[in-house]
Amino acid sequence: MKRVVTFGEVMMRLSPPGYAKFSQTNTLDVVYGGGEANVAISLAYLGVSAAHVTRFPDNLLGRSAEQFLRHHWLDTSAIIYGDHHMGKYFLEKGAVHRGSQVVYERDGSAFAKIEPGMVDWSQVLDGADWFHWTGITPAVSAGAAACCQEAIAEANKRGITVSADIHSRKSLWNYGKAQQEIMPELIAGSDVVIGSEYDVSEIFGEPITGEGNERFRIAAEKLTKLCPRIQKVFDKNREMVSASHNRIQGKLWNGKEFLKTTKLDVTHIVDRVGTGDAYAAGIIYGLLHYAEDIQALKFATAACALKHTVEGDANMVSLEVVQNVMEGNTSGKISR
Amino acid sequence: MKRVVTFGEVMMRLSPPGYAKFSQTNTLDVVYGGGEANVAISLAYLGVSAAHVTRFPDNLLGRSAEQFLRHHWLDTSAIIYGDHHMGKYFLEKGAVHRGSQVVYERDGSAFAKIEPGMVDWSQVLDGADWFHWTGITPAVSAGAAACCQEAIAEANKRGITVSADIHSRKSLWNYGKAQQEIMPELIAGSDVVIGSEYDVSEIFGEPITGEGNERFRIAAEKLTKLCPRIQKVFDKNREMVSASHNRIQGKLWNGKEFLKTTKLDVTHIVDRVGTGDAYAAGIIYGLLHYAEDIQALKFATAACALKHTVEGDANMVSLEVVQNVMEGNTSGKISR
Amino acid sequence: MKRVVTFGEVMMRLSPPGYAKFSQTNTLDVVYGGGEANVAISLAYLGVSAAHVTRFPDNLLGRSAEQFLRHHWLDTSAIIYGDHHMGKYFLEKGAVHRGSQVVYERDGSAFAKIEPGMVDWSQVLDGADWFHWTGITPAVSAGAAACCQEAIAEANKRGITVSADIHSRKSLWNYGKAQQEIMPELIAGSDVVIGSEYDVSEIFGEPITGEGNERFRIAAEKLTKLCPRIQKVFDKNREMVSASHNRIQGKLWNGKEFLKTTKLDVTHIVDRVGTGDAYAAGIIYGLLHYAEDIQALKFATAACALKHTVEGDANMVSLEVVQNVMEGNTSGKISR
Amino acid sequence: MKRVVTFGEVMMRLSPPGYAKFSQTNTLDVVYGGGEANVAISLAYLGVSAAHVTRFPDNLLGRSAEQFLRHHWLDTSAIIYGDHHMGKYFLEKGAVHRGSQVVYERDGSAFAKIEPGMVDWSQVLDGADWFHWTGITPAVSAGAAACCQEAIAEANKRGITVSADIHSRKSLWNYGKAQQEIMPELIAGSDVVIGSEYDVSEIFGEPITGEGNERFRIAAEKLTKLCPRIQKVFDKNREMVSASHNRIQGKLWNGKEFLKTTKLDVTHIVDRVGTGDAYAAGIIYGLLHYAEDIQALKFATAACALKHTVEGDANMVSLEVVQNVMEGNTSGKISR
Amino acid sequence: MKRVVTFGEVMMRLSPPGYAKFSQTNTLDVVYGGGEANVAISLAYLGVSAAHVTRFPDNLLGRSAEQFLRHHWLDTSAIIYGDHHMGKYFLEKGAVHRGSQVVYERDGSAFAKIEPGMVDWSQVLDGADWFHWTGITPAVSAGAAACCQEAIAEANKRGITVSADIHSRKSLWNYGKAQQEIMPELIAGSDVVIGSEYDVSEIFGEPITGEGNERFRIAAEKLTKLCPRIQKVFDKNREMVSASHNRIQGKLWNGKEFLKTTKLDVTHIVDRVGTGDAYAAGIIYGLLHYAEDIQALKFATAACALKHTVEGDANMVSLEVVQNVMEGNTSGKISR
Amino acid sequence: MKRVVTFGEVMMRLSPPGYAKFSQTNTLDVVYGGGEANVAISLAYLGVSAAHVTRFPDNLLGRSAEQFLRHHWLDTSAIIYGDHHMGKYFLEKGAVHRGSQVVYERDGSAFAKIEPGMVDWSQVLDGADWFHWTGITPAVSAGAAACCQEAIAEANKRGITVSADIHSRKSLWNYGKAQQEIMPELIAGSDVVIGSEYDVSEIFGEPITGEGNERFRIAAEKLTKLCPRIQKVFDKNREMVSASHNRIQGKLWNGKEFLKTTKLDVTHIVDRVGTGDAYAAGIIYGLLHYAEDIQALKFATAACALKHTVEGDANMVSLEVVQNVMEGNTSGKISR
Repeated sequence: MKRVVTFGEVMMRLSPPGYAKFSQTNTLDVVYGGGEANVAISLAYLGVSAAHVTRFPDNLLGRSAEQFLRHHWLDTSAIIYGDHHMGKYFLEKGAVHRGSQVVYERDGSAFAKIEPGMVDWSQVLDGADWFHWTGITPAVSAGAAACCQEAIAEANKRGITVSADIHSRKSLWNYGKAQQEIMPELIAGSDVVIGSEYDVSEIFGEPITGEGNERFRIAAEKLTKLCPRIQKVFDKNREMVSASHNRIQGKLWNGKEFLKTTKLDVTHIVDRVGTGDAYAAGIIYGLLHYAEDIQALKFATAACALKHTVEGDANMVSLEVVQNVMEGNTSGKISR
Repeated sequence: MKRVVTFGEVMMRLSPPGYAKFSQTNTLDVVYGGGEANVAISLAYLGVSAAHVTRFPDNLLGRSAEQFLRHHWLDTSAIIYGDHHMGKYFLEKGAVHRGSQVVYERDGSAFAKIEPGMVDWSQVLDGADWFHWTGITPAVSAGAAACCQEAIAEANKRGITVSADIHSRKSLWNYGKAQQEIMPELIAGSDVVIGSEYDVSEIFGEPITGEGNERFRIAAEKLTKLCPRIQKVFDKNREMVSASHNRIQGKLWNGKEFLKTTKLDVTHIVDRVGTGDAYAAGIIYGLLHYAEDIQALKFATAACALKHTVEGDANMVSLEVVQNVMEGNTSGKISR
Repeated sequence: MKRVVTFGEVMMRLSPPGYAKFSQTNTLDVVYGGGEANVAISLAYLGVSAAHVTRFPDNLLGRSAEQFLRHHWLDTSAIIYGDHHMGKYFLEKGAVHRGSQVVYERDGSAFAKIEPGMVDWSQVLDGADWFHWTGITPAVSAGAAACCQEAIAEANKRGITVSADIHSRKSLWNYGKAQQEIMPELIAGSDVVIGSEYDVSEIFGEPITGEGNERFRIAAEKLTKLCPRIQKVFDKNREMVSASHNRIQGKLWNGKEFLKTTKLDVTHIVDRVGTGDAYAAGIIYGLLHYAEDIQALKFATAACALKHTVEGDANMVSLEVVQNVMEGNTSGKISR
Repeated sequence: MKRVVTFGEVMMRLSPPGYAKFSQTNTLDVVYGGGEANVAISLAYLGVSAAHVTRFPDNLLGRSAEQFLRHHWLDTSAIIYGDHHMGKYFLEKGAVHRGSQVVYERDGSAFAKIEPGMVDWSQVLDGADWFHWTGITPAVSAGAAACCQEAIAEANKRGITVSADIHSRKSLWNYGKAQQEIMPELIAGSDVVIGSEYDVSEIFGEPITGEGNERFRIAAEKLTKLCPRIQKVFDKNREMVSASHNRIQGKLWNGKEFLKTTKLDVTHIVDRVGTGDAYAAGIIYGLLHYAEDIQALKFATAACALKHTVEGDANMVSLEVVQNVMEGNTSGKISR
Repeated sequence: MKRVVTFGEVMMRLSPPGYAKFSQTNTLDVVYGGGEANVAISLAYLGVSAAHVTRFPDNLLGRSAEQFLRHHWLDTSAIIYGDHHMGKYFLEKGAVHRGSQVVYERDGSAFAKIEPGMVDWSQVLDGADWFHWTGITPAVSAGAAACCQEAIAEANKRGITVSADIHSRKSLWNYGKAQQEIMPELIAGSDVVIGSEYDVSEIFGEPITGEGNERFRIAAEKLTKLCPRIQKVFDKNREMVSASHNRIQGKLWNGKEFLKTTKLDVTHIVDRVGTGDAYAAGIIYGLLHYAEDIQALKFATAACALKHTVEGDANMVSLEVVQNVMEGNTSGKISR
Repeated sequence: MKRVVTFGEVMMRLSPPGYAKFSQTNTLDVVYGGGEANVAISLAYLGVSAAHVTRFPDNLLGRSAEQFLRHHWLDTSAIIYGDHHMGKYFLEKGAVHRGSQVVYERDGSAFAKIEPGMVDWSQVLDGADWFHWTGITPAVSAGAAACCQEAIAEANKRGITVSADIHSRKSLWNYGKAQQEIMPELIAGSDVVIGSEYDVSEIFGEPITGEGNERFRIAAEKLTKLCPRIQKVFDKNREMVSASHNRIQGKLWNGKEFLKTTKLDVTHIVDRVGTGDAYAAGIIYGLLHYAEDIQALKFATAACALKHTVEGDANMVSLEVVQNVMEGNTSGKISR
């Protein structure tokens, strides 16, 4: 069984039931999620051994969060505890023309106060096949960025594949550093990158020419030249018909060719959050288990589409379900 | 900040959760709503100062209803109390080919027993910019009709714009008067009317010729001739693909030209009730804040479409959300 | 009022709320259902007198199950009690590309332990117009098969119309008999059959030629030759766009002509389970109340489509609602 | 199996979950109840054949109410339908020093509009062993009082035992008659009466002397003299320590002796509503099945105490559970 | 109608349903509360005009919080908005020997960042009869302490009565000041104080001698000497039998005599949080409306006891309910 | 950190919310529990490393059950999968005089079909300090009894302390063996036993003389003579005032002296199930961490009392909470 390690903040997610607005409810649904832990949980449901590393406040909220991760099959033995604040986000689910609305409360969280040296990466990564991080983590705090760098360095030393989802959110960077100062070095230590032409141009300050998928191919090629360790650059096209209806298509530049899948039509969306993380998990699973890139890409796209039907942040569908859609069985037949 | 006053019955709405039928549930969701209060709440969420005038039973139900209106930002200081019955309606939400089903229990309600003189309209309308009423109110009882007439007269005296949603429901008129006897005088005191060719022909007994939108234009023109105070006549086209899928298009005869918007495709409807009231609120907001009629019409149509995604009777979306859709951003992107 | 009797196992159905997965919930929704009882309940809501015969464990679960059937208007006076296990099934509702997942726990249930002689069919069928059974019952146990045979024989003796839904599920047959050994004799005692070309070829071992609807017609014709009592063979086309979107078309071979309806587009499915049973109930109602086969077929197809909007196993819509859709009013208009 | 018929209004009961107040909730729990139907349901759970007669509005609320009664084992075949309003009551559950609060909305209900001749009492009472009514019914309307009189007369004619719970609520009498004008004749047709010295003095205008239980004995004796058909007069002592803690003691004057039970200490009350009806049902069951009055009294007191632990209006415990407490097993041991 | 103004932080309170622990739930109940706002809400339900002043984050959480306060009748017109964090607390409700557990997350909240000058106290206090603050506010931040001081100074200038609940929680003081440095000046501006001998000795560093109530009297007397503006010092005895059972007794030193009430036995506690605030509200109501101190004290003690039966932070019972218990009617009789 | 291993069936527990009866609900709360796993979970919350061994059906129910155990901190790595049935029990919670009612459905479960050799006890018990079993396991099936015997033998070989809760339930033994045939050998391999004089006399057929606690002491002494490996025999006195109110007292014969604790008064019980397992867990924790038997006994009794306040089968309170009650702090003070 393959072993994957992920690192990043896990937040308490609080959302009104159904399509209610905050002003209409007096109960909130609670799950825990974060870009990297979502990847780990998705992988665990696919049968991969997945460990997540994070830092929680040393109180009943932190412990409940760890329990959630254990519930969903993660190895939580490397989680550390300290400080008092739990990162949180509030989600009001939209429909049709009304987009979902998210409010973050993550400043000063236990994770933001993580410091280099707190995690024993040598022990955590011992026996791992893969390490995954995202652009959110270095945006949280200088300490988180430094920890992430430690992990990448250790993974590189051990020959563990490193993947990075660099779809950064500019608004998160407010501890005094710009992503251009921090991200390039971290990306340079990665083997597989998920990111768009926009991310490449933002982070590396390089102008990208071309239109549509060609524009992506050019950016991806440029990225692999800037960071020679990078083998593959993934992204996806998301056609947003409405908050209830998206179309998803996977795409990949593997250094030699540009690959793309057919579009999956996702109408009657249940929960859009974490669909990018489901895609990342699908990429990791696919590259670890399929010989051909196109298979990995199809697997990841199917996983991404399926996440739209699962409530919460993470993709909790089984391997068989993903493989079924990957093989084109999209009719949603009842399985008895 | 503009100030709008609305007048009409507010009912307790009881509905099974989700798509359950009454025969399947032992809990009911409760909100409070009524055509005019829905307009007021929608306006309040858009940032307008909105007061609603009604009469509630003097018991814990009446007070809970007022609390609901306060919760949703209304000025409730002009609400009066008396008698014992709360108007109610029971709603079983449909989907696809199964339409929603509504059962009313409003006979003998505290509002139906309102009498002229109970509301001090001079005080209530002091400082107001707009007064809104609907054809439901005069249908409820002679007292309610007379109160409505008092309000319109006072508004006219003060030069306050009066709008009327005359989409009447014939079955409501059962206190011995026909709408033809009561409505014309009330409509004659209004500046802005929302109503269809059907309403015009029903209420004024005038035959309307023509087809489609042309038929509406003819009726609207006729109406403005019958009631010279009327400046603008609004209506909308609702294409009902199914209970879960409608298409909405706003239309307007402003005395000079016939205007219409593009159609908004609303599929995956969350709650259809009150979408007409959201349209009315959008018209009022639009006419108060935009220089051009077509802008007001687009705003109102966007508001109407958005209400289909909000649970309950009233449109609780913010100004930014309506403006975003009005400008054509219908992709329902997550806002973080 | 017509009187219909149905016979078969009723299971406790346990499902997470909404689209949650079992791994995400700590409450389960409970209803009771089974292919034949679903038909009975659907008929009862249409105004038919419907009795269901089954066997429940003699404990609070069995009694709760009977209470559920009483609640939904069934005559339960012929239900018998004994043993300790309640048949159960667990349902995880899917959406879009993720199909629903069902897990059965029905081995050793009180119903599986039913034995011939336990039901007094002569009394139960006294005054009945129709008896309905499905291919599930003889698959459950030898005792259940024998009881079913008793009922059919008694119905035949009394000239009561017998209908059979033979859409069997091969995986259910595991008490040592194959369906080929048991089903033919039971089918031979039936007047109306619901089944596909696949069922005919499976059960009777006859090769069927042809394509599409023609293939069905050939199978149906063959079936009526093999079992001369059969007057009509029904089936439906279900086009599965996704778990949230199906298209339904009814079809019928009545010995003389092949009839089919227009397709009903069911998008935004609420609950797919029991839609076949709703179709069966529609056939029975239709044949009992309409002079022409095409009317019965249209009624049944409308009923089937409507069930997709009702939570639980059975179709709880009223006669008016079905007739409305049957007449082409598919716009889902609010009824006030 | 004994057969009991009851007659009276059934209301929809709406209450916030737990101890919430109306101002704190947006969902309401729904059950259906009424003094006489509660008696019938309690008896049905004890194994008695129980039919309830009432009148419901001819809409989905009326039908849901009938379904509730069927669910809880009642024979509802004599229920009649007409008009549009469902009687309702709203209940806010209290605790400790805060008493529960009830608001009624029953004016103009379908039941209040019942008229003599609407119920075919000859058919309804055919084969019955017992008829039960309460002082609430004649208070509702002249029609209800007349119907009740019809039923008593028919029962008397057939030699069916009649019981009456005369704990009237003065505030209900507002259709122009006083209870003193109507009740005596109805009580005179009854064999078993449940009522206090207060009721006797109120209704018959007779001054009662004495203290405590002696006062009750005197009133009961007086009552049996005024109405010679009456054989037994029951009442109970309720010591209200708080809304969460009551003590219950049954008492009886049977024309010869005054009997009373030991006190049952009911602390941690779950739902107090309908405990008097559970007592009445216990009396009816007891007198029908026990040879000695003291046994009937003990059974009724145990039933009354147990109802305090059951949510809703009616006592849904089984015969074994009541008998167990009646025999002094009050330790609430788990039954496996 | 009397007008009271309160000032302090309002937190979002998140708690598992019933007695569940955080590790057992995936939904949380939400209310908003804070010591001072709880007082205001309690007063509003008693019929007093109550305004609360606070600072909320400028996002949907802040607005939902204000809506909660409006719902419960507060005048929220003086609330100001800014920054991003909402103060929160997490509550796990205990029972019997298991005490409730509270976790705070209030560092860096919008309220903690309040600064002097942000509130226009002159306008806010115009027309007020009473101003209430607690020892929590100056503990939150230097800005909050300074604002509180501004308010007290303005109230003193205008002759508005000032009350202070000084039951401080030492652990809250962590912005670099000790309560001994800040509190004395604020207390010196107050007319009515609620506090214990412990608080007096902690804050003023004065040793207190004596035992039991005598010890309280001595402390109170000392306090009135230290701060001559103080007219009355209130406290209560809380006998904690268990988390489900407390006994409450009010006590008062009014400068002349020591008064105390009888004990109220509160067993079957529903929610203990905010019972001290209900007591404070009772004191304010009592002193504003009763001529004699003992009446005010009895009223406050009844209010305190009643709050134990109300879910959430604030006492939402009506004036009649408190007066009823105050007069000794503690039997919790149903009110119809 | 100490390591404890437990072995036994884990059932899905389904119960109506609150005090509802099965006939009143359409949702069920789900937890998973079993005598031995409850002990393990309780220990895990106290900070002990706890592994549970069981066998689950190989489907989504089995996996959900394992997820529940992981959620509550158990090491589930030794759980094995096979067959199709999940053991279940249905619980209707009682109050006051109405005892809770339990219905089991565990025949033919995956656990009942466990066979010797399926568990690698040598690996499972490697590094363990303690092994715990109960009399339920050998009652389930011959295979389960044999597996239990394997485990005890391996534990004895390795010098691991073995504890046994022998409070057997006679009704469970129905696979053809009597407990007298199987239990003595298993008990003989145990070091610590929890059981009553009744159990000793039932299982060993020895008459026990004496009264009250003396009777227990005699039985315990006899047991230690029959099974010389046994060092300590524990039991508890449970005084059942009602289903809502129990009193608990721990007692112990340690071969030298009879020890007992003071009684803990548990009134306002939240959930009684699993309180014996909490006691067992307390004994194990106590003997592993305290030098003196009386400390272990006090700890266990406190743990037992606290479980009555926790919903579900297992005691999820922390070490501090138990120690607090053990030290006599039973006032249930809020911890902030």
